Amino acid sequence: MSTPSPTTPAPPRSPLHSILYDGVSLRYLNQRLLPTELRYQTVLDADGAAAAVAAMEVRGAPAIALLGCLAVALELKGGRGPRGDPEALVEFVEERMGRVRDARPTAVNVGRETERLKGEMRAWMDREPAVSEGELRDRAIAHLEALLQKDVEDNRRIGSHGARHIAQRLQGGSRATLLSHCNTGSLATAGYGTALGVVRALHSEGRVARLLCTETRPFLQGARLTALEMLHEGVPTTLIADSAAAAAIRERGVHAVVVGADRIAANGDTANKIGTYSLAVAALHHGVPFYVAAPSSSWDPNVPNGASIPIEERPERELTELQGVRVAPHGIDVWNPAFDVTPHELITGGIVTEFGVFRPEELRHALGGR
Amino acid sequence: MSTPSPTTPAPPRSPLHSILYDGVSLRYLNQRLLPTELRYQTVLDADGAAAAVAAMEVRGAPAIALLGCLAVALELKGGRGPRGDPEALVEFVEERMGRVRDARPTAVNVGRETERLKGEMRAWMDREPAVSEGELRDRAIAHLEALLQKDVEDNRRIGSHGARHIAQRLQGGSRATLLSHCNTGSLATAGYGTALGVVRALHSEGRVARLLCTETRPFLQGARLTALEMLHEGVPTTLIADSAAAAAIRERGVHAVVVGADRIAANGDTANKIGTYSLAVAALHHGVPFYVAAPSSSWDPNVPNGASIPIEERPERELTELQGVRVAPHGIDVWNPAFDVTPHELITGGIVTEFGVFRPEELRHALGGR
Repeated sequence: MSTPSPTTPAPPRSPLHSILYDGVSLRYLNQRLLPTELRYQTVLDADGAAAAVAAMEVRGAPAIALLGCLAVALELKGGRGPRGDPEALVEFVEERMGRVRDARPTAVNVGRETERLKGEMRAWMDREPAVSEGELRDRAIAHLEALLQKDVEDNRRIGSHGARHIAQRLQGGSRATLLSHCNTGSLATAGYGTALGVVRALHSEGRVARLLCTETRPFLQGARLTALEMLHEGVPTTLIADSAAAAAIRERGVHAVVVGADRIAANGDTANKIGTYSLAVAALHHGVPFYVAAPSSSWDPNVPNGASIPIEERPERELTELQGVRVAPHGIDVWNPAFDVTPHELITGGIVTEFGVFRPEELRHALGGR
Repeated sequence: MSTPSPTTPAPPRSPLHSILYDGVSLRYLNQRLLPTELRYQTVLDADGAAAAVAAMEVRGAPAIALLGCLAVALELKGGRGPRGDPEALVEFVEERMGRVRDARPTAVNVGRETERLKGEMRAWMDREPAVSEGELRDRAIAHLEALLQKDVEDNRRIGSHGARHIAQRLQGGSRATLLSHCNTGSLATAGYGTALGVVRALHSEGRVARLLCTETRPFLQGARLTALEMLHEGVPTTLIADSAAAAAIRERGVHAVVVGADRIAANGDTANKIGTYSLAVAALHHGVPFYVAAPSSSWDPNVPNGASIPIEERPERELTELQGVRVAPHGIDVWNPAFDVTPHELITGGIVTEFGVFRPEELRHALGGR
């Protein structure tokens, strides 16, 4: 037997999951301990989910919503809440979901899922006035549990559509060098990821030469999370400072930039993590296609354009302190927006959804009727 | 007497100096303690200067060179070194300067100043074979002491030329919003600064509405040093993440981007702190003039273009650790170049030197004969 060469790369480790759910137990990966420790912690109910969310141990709007929904599903399975009264059950579900929503009010997905479930439950009661509380409970559980699978399936479709689009632009069977920003992988979603889902799908076909990932100041989601996920997936990945992205596009031969989206306006203007706009400008300058990968639910036909998307400003101390150590002088003014808007004309690759890859101006036609 | 309103801005504090020298004593500002503590420390000789440089308590190639030169001047004033033997004095000066040079071999300015002084001393000895050791010593002291004033004067000229150029583009008497990167102020030079010298000159005329300064990962020279200097100068300054620069240019109405240069090639291609290229691309996209401010000595006619400038790669841990805490997973690949090259065609404002503001293609004519 030959011993492996010391330069043999480590084999891929198992994929990371933000949430593990098997129908009887619910666990989440404590993201505050990353990248140095992988610890899955158990959640028994909505209060446990709310505590994990409030402590920022789970982040990413889809992951937060799923954790809350599955915690409520567990409560319903465990027989909690009113018995025998369908109307009271709806109120119980709303109250439980509200505990998770209140733990992080900006994560709007929890509220949206609450409204959807309430709507479904009331529709069932309208259609079948004689529905029992037990039947309604079972249907609510099935509805909530289905969300996990749907999120993963949507992301896999996003990945597949995006990978095909990028692969078609590569010469022959050559491999792509990609650049991404922030974290849009398994840790931000229920699994697989959006922009990183595209990277994973392309990697599964052996078509990724390298992913360049920005560290993503100030919260370092790229360094802490994306780098870790990609190591676990076995994707060759290089960490860079945010400011090195333009030089990397030029010096490292980037074929495509792929990012996620927090919100997409009707015209395709996209709000995403601060720094996305800078990457889009650099991609345009170098003639590199720029893709936004996001579930169709991120598209909001009621928001006409990027100027209508409110941009959250984050606390100054995210820039003035590192690990609690002061690095900027007291009294300095700080501008720390959480997001910036990339105008649709810079999204030259396309917007990758579970329904396909669309040019921004196609979104209304492609998604408007769904 | 009325009490000041709580919103009254603090009055400007005194300017910062990297080096204080009065002909009998030499002190430097310990930059490792910034921005939380301002401590000037005394240097008595070349060994003291070398120790401060090796400990990174003084940074910036001009500041390092000046500290070494003035420390040797102090030794010569104090009567150290061989008496009565001019040739031995040259060797003594070379040996003393070598101690500072060896403390930070990449700071090439110390070596350059050593060669210049040796050349001057030998030229004196050639011209006046009977020159006494005492006369040669006095001339060496005068030569070394003059460097401090020349650096400050050159920077003031850079500031004045750059400020006039920018002011001419402003409508009427309006004030400019400027964006800069890294630290190019009093702390990196003997005083006044290059790109920040331009900002100071424009501010002294009441023409600066605001300076946006990038934090400048990974070393945070923008957050630690530029923000501090500008507070001391009373320049209204806002700290941003590097990745927010493109959004800031768009959202905050930036009139000009002004950066320094580590090295300028014959054709005007410029190497500067990583992230400079990204700013130049963003400035071009927004039609904002992009200026490089540097002493003419940064221009090297022997380097034909940017591709010929070697780019130092820095240690991975600058990205994988914050304040000694691991923030990226072990095993991740890192690309951490110290500089990037901005091609001359992106330097749309001009290259600001002590002799004036030039288009990159004018440099050969403007500086070649000097």
